[in-house]
Order: sequence, then C-alpha cells, then structure tokens
Amino acid sequence: MQIDGKPWRTIWRDQAGGVGIIDQTCLPHSFETLTLASLQDAAVAIRTMQVRGAPLIGAAAAYGLALGLDEDPTDIGLERAHRALAETRPTAINLRWALGRVVDSVCALLPEARAERAFAEADAIAEEDVAINAALGRFGAELIKEIASKKPGRTVNILTHCNAGWLATVDWGTATAPIYQAFQAGIPLHVWVDETRPRNQGAFLTAWELNHAGVPHTVIADNAGGHLMQHGQVDLAIVGTDRTTRTGDVCNKIGTYLKALAAHDCGVPFYVALPSSTIDWTLTDGRAIPIEERAGTEVSHISGRTADGRIVEVQLTPNGSGVANPGFDVTPARLITGLITERGIAPASAEGLAALFPERARTRAA
Amino acid sequence: MQIDGKPWRTIWRDQAGGVGIIDQTCLPHSFETLTLASLQDAAVAIRTMQVRGAPLIGAAAAYGLALGLDEDPTDIGLERAHRALAETRPTAINLRWALGRVVDSVCALLPEARAERAFAEADAIAEEDVAINAALGRFGAELIKEIASKKPGRTVNILTHCNAGWLATVDWGTATAPIYQAFQAGIPLHVWVDETRPRNQGAFLTAWELNHAGVPHTVIADNAGGHLMQHGQVDLAIVGTDRTTRTGDVCNKIGTYLKALAAHDCGVPFYVALPSSTIDWTLTDGRAIPIEERAGTEVSHISGRTADGRIVEVQLTPNGSGVANPGFDVTPARLITGLITERGIAPASAEGLAALFPERARTRAA
Repeated sequence: MQIDGKPWRTIWRDQAGGVGIIDQTCLPHSFETLTLASLQDAAVAIRTMQVRGAPLIGAAAAYGLALGLDEDPTDIGLERAHRALAETRPTAINLRWALGRVVDSVCALLPEARAERAFAEADAIAEEDVAINAALGRFGAELIKEIASKKPGRTVNILTHCNAGWLATVDWGTATAPIYQAFQAGIPLHVWVDETRPRNQGAFLTAWELNHAGVPHTVIADNAGGHLMQHGQVDLAIVGTDRTTRTGDVCNKIGTYLKALAAHDCGVPFYVALPSSTIDWTLTDGRAIPIEERAGTEVSHISGRTADGRIVEVQLTPNGSGVANPGFDVTPARLITGLITERGIAPASAEGLAALFPERARTRAA
Repeated sequence: MQIDGKPWRTIWRDQAGGVGIIDQTCLPHSFETLTLASLQDAAVAIRTMQVRGAPLIGAAAAYGLALGLDEDPTDIGLERAHRALAETRPTAINLRWALGRVVDSVCALLPEARAERAFAEADAIAEEDVAINAALGRFGAELIKEIASKKPGRTVNILTHCNAGWLATVDWGTATAPIYQAFQAGIPLHVWVDETRPRNQGAFLTAWELNHAGVPHTVIADNAGGHLMQHGQVDLAIVGTDRTTRTGDVCNKIGTYLKALAAHDCGVPFYVALPSSTIDWTLTDGRAIPIEERAGTEVSHISGRTADGRIVEVQLTPNGSGVANPGFDVTPARLITGLITERGIAPASAEGLAALFPERARTRAA
C-alpha cells in the first residue's frame, strides 16, 4: 500500500542483510521503521507486537529463523531459533506454519547453505502472502459489489474488528483486501472500525491505514457494533482470524465472538477473510485452540498523544483492582456466513473448506 | 456505603443550602466533592457526568429543580428549570420521572412555598431510592445464594457492565445491591468488571467501589466477557438500566446487548436490576427509546493517571479519523432472564411486570 505516495510493505530485506519492519507500536501517532538484525530482534518484535497480525507474524518468524541461521546454522542453532520464535505467540497458527516451512526447506542442507535458503524461503512466504491476499481480496470485493448492487446509490457499511489490514500482513491485508479492492473499483463504502480494546489495533492501526488510503471510516467503541447492527447501519462484517479449524471455527481477536453473535441476531452477513495458512487442519473444535493471556497492563494502562504531541502512558484502573486479558476468543462456525479465502468463498464448515482445499483436508485430524 | 470507614451517599443537602455531590469525573484517581449551588450547577453536573447513573440523575434533577425554584419560584421559573434539566440527558427515564414528581408536588403551591416543598420532595426521592435499592438487593442476593448453593465451596462469578453501583444511585446501587448484600452475607463471590468504553465507568467507578467494599473483582476489556461465558467463568450477569419498557426491553449502557447475546448463547442467566422508576409504562418497544449520541472525544481521547500522579488526557485515534459514540443500546426482553425490582424478580415481559406493578401497568401505552 502507499503512504504519502510511496509504496510500502510491512516487512522487507534491507541492503545491510537485516530485515526492515514498520514499528507498529508507534502508530498511529508516528511512523517509524526498525531493522531486525538478529534472531533476538525478531523474537522481541513479535512478542512486543512491533509486528503483529497472523500473516505478518508468519513472515516475520520466517525471517527471524533466517537471521538465526545466519548466527548459528547448526542443527542446534536451528532448533534453538525455532523454539525461541515458536514461543513468542501461542495462538496464531501462521507462526508455526511458517517456521515449519522454513525448517523443512533447510534441514537437509549443509549448515553453510542454510541461511541463504531460509531467507529465500522467507521471501517466498512474503511474496505468496501478497498474492494470496490480493486473490482473496478479489473474491471479497465481488461480495461487496453484490451488496452494493442491492442498494444502488447508497453506501455499503462494513464493520471490522481489530486490524486485519495490510499492517497485519505483508500487503493488502485480509479483512481489508476486499475493502481496498472494492473501494478502488469505485464502490461507495464506509467502514465502522471497532477500536478493539485493549491494544486498540482498530483505532491505532486500521483507522491509520484507512486514513492513508482515503477510505471513509468511523472509529467506534467495541460496545457500539451491536447497536449499529440493530439499526441497519451495518451491511456486512469482515474480520480476520489467527487460527481457523478444519470445521470453520474461527479464533480471532477477543470480542470477535460478540460481533458475530450480534450479526447473527440482526441478520447481518458475517465473513472471515483468511489465507489458507491460518487453517489448522488438525483441529475439529475451536475450543482446543490455546488462548494467549496477555499482560494485564494492556488493560490497566494505555498510551496516547497529549495535546502538545508527547506520547504518554496513563493508568486507567484504580490501584488494587486486578485485571485479566485474554487475547482471543473463538467464534463457532454456526455464526459465520462464509470464509473468504484465496481460492474463493467457502461455507464455514468441514465440507466447505474441504471442497476448496481437498489436498489439505486429507490431513488427519489430531 | 463506606469510604475509609465513613458512611457516604452520592448526594446530600449541605448546611449552606446547597447540594453536595461526589464529583465522579475525578474517580478513581481522586475523591472529590462539589457543591451544587444553582440550577445551572445541577444541569452542568448531570450533563458532564459529575453525577450519572439513572437513579442518581433522577435525584440530582429533583434537587436541581429545587435549586431553580430557590432562584425563581414563578411558573416561568419552574418551566425554565424543568426544561433546562430535562434536556441534559435524553435516554434515562428517571430524569423525567423525578422532574415530573417535583413539578406535581409544587405546581399548585404559591411561589414562596415552592422551593422548600421541592427540596422535601427531592429528599423523599433520595430516601426512597435508598430503600428501593436495599429491597431489590435483598431479592437479588437470594438469587446469588441460590446459585452459590448449587456450587458449594466455590466462588460465584458475576459479570457486570458499566456502573450500576452505589455511585449510580443515592446508595447501594442497582446491579451491585445484590452483590453487596450477598457479600455481606458471606457468599464467596467475584465480580468481572467490564471496563465499559468509552467512558470507562466500569474501570473507573465500579472497580473503585468494589475495591473500597473489599469485594474481589477483576477488570476486563468489554471484548472479554463472551469468551469468559463460553468457558464457564461467569455464573450470572447483572446490569442496570436507564429505561425499561413495559414489555421488559432494557435500554442500558452501550454494549449491554452484546453481553446479553453472549449470556443467552452460553446459557448464563442475565438479570437486570432496576427501581421501578426506570420503567417507562408508555412504551411497548425498546426501539422507540431515544439513544443519546455523546461527544466523539469520549472515544478519541481518554484521561488517566501518569506514573508521576498527574491526570492527563491523551488522544487515541489518528488525526483525520471520524468517531461515533452512541451512549446506549436496547436489549430485547427475549434475552433477559429476569428483572430484579424492589417488589421481587419478574420475567422480562409485559405480564411479568404487570403482575408486580398492577397499578402502574394500567397506564395507557403511547
């Protein structure tokens, strides 16, 4: 995507042998880039959410493994790098998928050939992510055009949760790819952006993205979406996913389940956009997905910009009050209208996914 | 309730002829009181949420009208004061109910007798609010005891949204009255406190209250409640209401509907605690309740305490992103297990409410 007329991706190789990223913890108030020069840098970037979003976590982990092999290409080094990266975030399946793919590509090689091969595999993962998101964006954009054709001359209102935008991927985004493509095709649309407490990825990242792309949007408290759906102000909800079971259950940012319930209750179509790398073909029940419990300070404290431009962290809760912070929830397939993938839109069911990905559906469930 | 061993209410008459309040915009980081010395002071206090919560808004408006009559006891003064106060908040029905009650009590009197009579009526409204909340607390506490008896030795987990605590009333609270009474009766309980964006009345006020009362509690993002319900970590939800239709639809803080949907989906009992003054006997459909659209800055900005103890406001959203801020939503009666009132617990239905309040149910629907 473009920022001030210049094309950007969220992750790239720089000329000094490092990996460049946008430091997403500085958005929306300042745009800063960072260089990951080591395995350790990559692990920190993933853990502290300088990079986040399931697809981007996958790509960053792949580059992290390559950086690790640059430092220590032995079997022990490979194992150590793999473990360090796999531990950074427990819920997103892309992390494990991307690490497995890089390991598979290098493990039979001599140590001295591994780092270069790992970087090439990470490049391939990143390139494929862009192509996959562009493809699912085309399918999703058709859906938006269909809705637009039923209300000629009126704006299509789309609600999204968290950031499943281009910042969550290498480019295009998952939930936002259909939005960007429909917008570029001239469909009049407007996006309701859930602020997405506690980390506010909606208010901080999705709103920033849509701003730069010129897409009309409005930030709302997470509490507001149900009310908007009750009043016909949402035509369609599209969210991302951190892990999807073979049966179509979707584990996504905490609060997704509440929006899916409201959409179901109000007859609003609820879609999930995903590269097939987020499908965990070993799982038949979303309740088996481990849910990351994140730091309580994400709830008790928040950072923002003061009137004089400083970034300041403030405490919200009283001293003495405990805090809990589950990072994700699971939306059962029964609440999901469809899964927008790079091969088309599937019903959220084992049959639906198997029809689109027959070669993967043969994987044995755990 | 007690603060550091000293009993407090949220509103009182002071010796100088003014009305004392706790300035709730300073909580949880500092405890400050204010004197309302004029109609204007009262209107500002209600509009800026120095006092908030449907029952307390009612009492504050009653005192505000008395202060207005102190300034101008003529018919014109009465009309002006009534209008100024009625306009402060559109959704809460108690405001209109309390104003109507004071107007009825003074309008036939000579101007010189009005202010004193209005203060007496405001005192009566405040005293009745305390008695009513204590009474509904007893019914609600029985409910909590029943749940506790089914899981002997284990803690009862109760989720609440926004602040329907003693700070939202004159004393006891509505949703919290059952909690305080069950806690005082020795029932082991724990409260999940929705932070309740955008104004954070859960994190700022309910957590502060529960802290001072020694009730175990945990603050969570509004997004988390559905996940907790899915995992059996909520035995019961109790919320307040700003207006309830004769048919049991409940208009409460934005986001209540989402929690009611989750409770329904997960088989968690969902109760609403209310003094009968929040019932609008003229309405049969919650969709007819006007929903207050509040300032966008409540979403785009937030105040909290810095590490060095200053209260600072920070901006959360990027420049250029619009914001919407509906203050309330309507939970249909079908999602509500029961209404906890001062006369007992009613099913959320026209029949249920009519059985408890037969004299009011004869009011003609609009």
